[in-house]
Amino acid sequence: MSIFGNKKEQETNVSHERKSLGECLTAVREQTPLIHNITNYVTVNDVANALLACGASPIMSDEPADVYDITTICGGLNINIGTLNERSIEAMTIAGSRARSLQHVILLDPVGAGASTLRTNTAITLMRTARPDVIRGNISEIKTLALGSGTTKGVDADAADTVTEENLDAMVKFVKDFAAKTNAVIAITGAIDLVADAETCYVIRNGRPEMSKITGTGCQLSGIATAYAVANPENKVDAVAAAVCLMGLAGEIGWSRMQEGDGNSTYRNRIIDAIFNMDAKTLEEGAKYEIR
Amino acid sequence: MSIFGNKKEQETNVSHERKSLGECLTAVREQTPLIHNITNYVTVNDVANALLACGASPIMSDEPADVYDITTICGGLNINIGTLNERSIEAMTIAGSRARSLQHVILLDPVGAGASTLRTNTAITLMRTARPDVIRGNISEIKTLALGSGTTKGVDADAADTVTEENLDAMVKFVKDFAAKTNAVIAITGAIDLVADAETCYVIRNGRPEMSKITGTGCQLSGIATAYAVANPENKVDAVAAAVCLMGLAGEIGWSRMQEGDGNSTYRNRIIDAIFNMDAKTLEEGAKYEIR
Amino acid sequence: MSIFGNKKEQETNVSHERKSLGECLTAVREQTPLIHNITNYVTVNDVANALLACGASPIMSDEPADVYDITTICGGLNINIGTLNERSIEAMTIAGSRARSLQHVILLDPVGAGASTLRTNTAITLMRTARPDVIRGNISEIKTLALGSGTTKGVDADAADTVTEENLDAMVKFVKDFAAKTNAVIAITGAIDLVADAETCYVIRNGRPEMSKITGTGCQLSGIATAYAVANPENKVDAVAAAVCLMGLAGEIGWSRMQEGDGNSTYRNRIIDAIFNMDAKTLEEGAKYEIR
Repeated sequence: MSIFGNKKEQETNVSHERKSLGECLTAVREQTPLIHNITNYVTVNDVANALLACGASPIMSDEPADVYDITTICGGLNINIGTLNERSIEAMTIAGSRARSLQHVILLDPVGAGASTLRTNTAITLMRTARPDVIRGNISEIKTLALGSGTTKGVDADAADTVTEENLDAMVKFVKDFAAKTNAVIAITGAIDLVADAETCYVIRNGRPEMSKITGTGCQLSGIATAYAVANPENKVDAVAAAVCLMGLAGEIGWSRMQEGDGNSTYRNRIIDAIFNMDAKTLEEGAKYEIR
Repeated sequence: MSIFGNKKEQETNVSHERKSLGECLTAVREQTPLIHNITNYVTVNDVANALLACGASPIMSDEPADVYDITTICGGLNINIGTLNERSIEAMTIAGSRARSLQHVILLDPVGAGASTLRTNTAITLMRTARPDVIRGNISEIKTLALGSGTTKGVDADAADTVTEENLDAMVKFVKDFAAKTNAVIAITGAIDLVADAETCYVIRNGRPEMSKITGTGCQLSGIATAYAVANPENKVDAVAAAVCLMGLAGEIGWSRMQEGDGNSTYRNRIIDAIFNMDAKTLEEGAKYEIR
Repeated sequence: MSIFGNKKEQETNVSHERKSLGECLTAVREQTPLIHNITNYVTVNDVANALLACGASPIMSDEPADVYDITTICGGLNINIGTLNERSIEAMTIAGSRARSLQHVILLDPVGAGASTLRTNTAITLMRTARPDVIRGNISEIKTLALGSGTTKGVDADAADTVTEENLDAMVKFVKDFAAKTNAVIAITGAIDLVADAETCYVIRNGRPEMSKITGTGCQLSGIATAYAVANPENKVDAVAAAVCLMGLAGEIGWSRMQEGDGNSTYRNRIIDAIFNMDAKTLEEGAKYEIR
């Protein structure tokens, strides 16, 4: 038996109807899911505005004495360890346990796993105890969780780890295997994004390289992906893929609106603006993905 | 005797000359009041920039060992419990007590009161111990404080609680009664805003519904309202009403500058920009209120 | 012997070739230095985006159990006490000691030194224990550190302390003396900026007065100056001067792009955008400084 538990083993063997990206988007806008975020203080404002932009409603709380009540009234829990501390780790544990018992959607964003022992250990512990439905990170972070080791250049992926056209087959197998082992949807984001459960892998080619010059697009995506999974509980892999396509496409649309003299700060605003204005039709037409 | 103390009972029985909204604005720009903020990390940057935009000067500190000194050199204290924790609650208590003893203006923003026991209890305790001059929240939060219970959908007001044209008379009575009981100016913000002391209630109809799609307009308003009350100490209800009109009008002006493709992130910037550019004449002409 | 240690006494007696501002900029863009920031939660997002804009890579961590590992993989450490607390002070101490032992560049930004005993004592202690390579603050903060006292209006400089054309000779002597005493590059920023080691003082006249109406330009500069010093280790005074010119020039370029109705929030974006787009030629042509 895996260290990652076996709660959802039977579910993942049940095949299901695919839900379109546009249907996933519409479900979020119709349901306005309330998302509890325990996230870093660097990008927290952008996460809140990105959640509002996609049609969800954010609440932030990281005090151990507060999170039980707060996560109880929410639909999903987004745990991001980007500026973890002893207090917030305790809050993540309490909220994770409560959200799990209520069968809320839990997403784990293991920011900087591999860069410090505390981050690696916290992420691995949360995988075991909170058993997240979704894990989203860059390739270095996900490899750290999967292999118990890895290299990370700070909070960015190590170039040696990149998903490329050349290693794509191997990476698709890797991510499906890790999804099977964790019973979670795994999202690896980078130049090529992979979103997979045990059976299905979306290979997504939206986005712009300039997005790496803004802090927080990954954190925003984790918040949005939580909301998408909450609003589409029977189709989590489709929902997370829709969120990843949404974020990448917003990066493309935002970039197309950049003017002479604009830089990364304006780009940040334009991306959130594009999420705000995204509709199902635009997402369907702009999404670039294949399913493997 | 009320649990909220009776410090200002005599003051509130003294009638005073009304001060115009424009005069209140000008006083802030002339005095540059220094405001100590113990506020949440989600919207803290916007609060700081909104305070600068309105002509005040912000300082943030939430460490118990630091706040006594910091609040001493300030003119007012803005307490916002949006991401409270054990440490910051202790800091709120120390700063609140010190500010009260110095007769500084204190504003309490009870973010999420009703959503968790910790938030409700912290807000109620601070009402008793810091005896705020101003309490600003949405209707769900204020009802929680007034009635000791309430429903809150996360940090947003519950729809069932909204102030409407139909229940306006009853709500005006409610807010005046709560103001009398607390000896504070009470500001309830929503589609219709109410700002009242025991005798006077401003009913304000500025603002745009799209403001709810940005995180932090309420937090910004609390910071600004603190500055307005500090700069207009003899006219706190007029000053807070001016701040509420300012925020709503900035929302209208900001919206009028939105262009094709803009969304909530750009709207955030445009609102703070409009606060920055607001002058007394524009505020006087654009404010939509009646006094009851 | 000075309380500030004597680690670099010999180095500072070695004269060196000046490096041009443009060369300093190019070194950052080529090396993408990874900077560990222990900074305040008010402006942390802007610091991260400013570091990305100038070509560096940011990571934030303030948990004592995390910072040893994090600072180890970085090239420099930016310590900013703007919202210090007991936990982050411990983290500053641990990270400072580790970074010093690895001979990483350390910058100290003593936000609010002079405004509270905790801030003053923390900054003075860090000067002794971490022995920063660069100290950047406003004149009130630097005077507090140099003289062990001072007046500070919150986190802004006291007007009585301003560097002016009239007191410039005395201020140049003061900053060189303090640089000699601390074996650090000292940067005092205001209407006129001074950047000095024991022998050389850059007097810089870039920037716009409107920059004081945005929170965080000082914090952004501290992050950027850390990156510049890391990428130009043999020319720290030139590198920090280049960072100060960059920030001021970005303020001028950003201001030139402001349109009717824009305010401090848009100005914030335009400044970071201008940092993003800055190249060596623009910096060389726009920098306004003399060396004394």
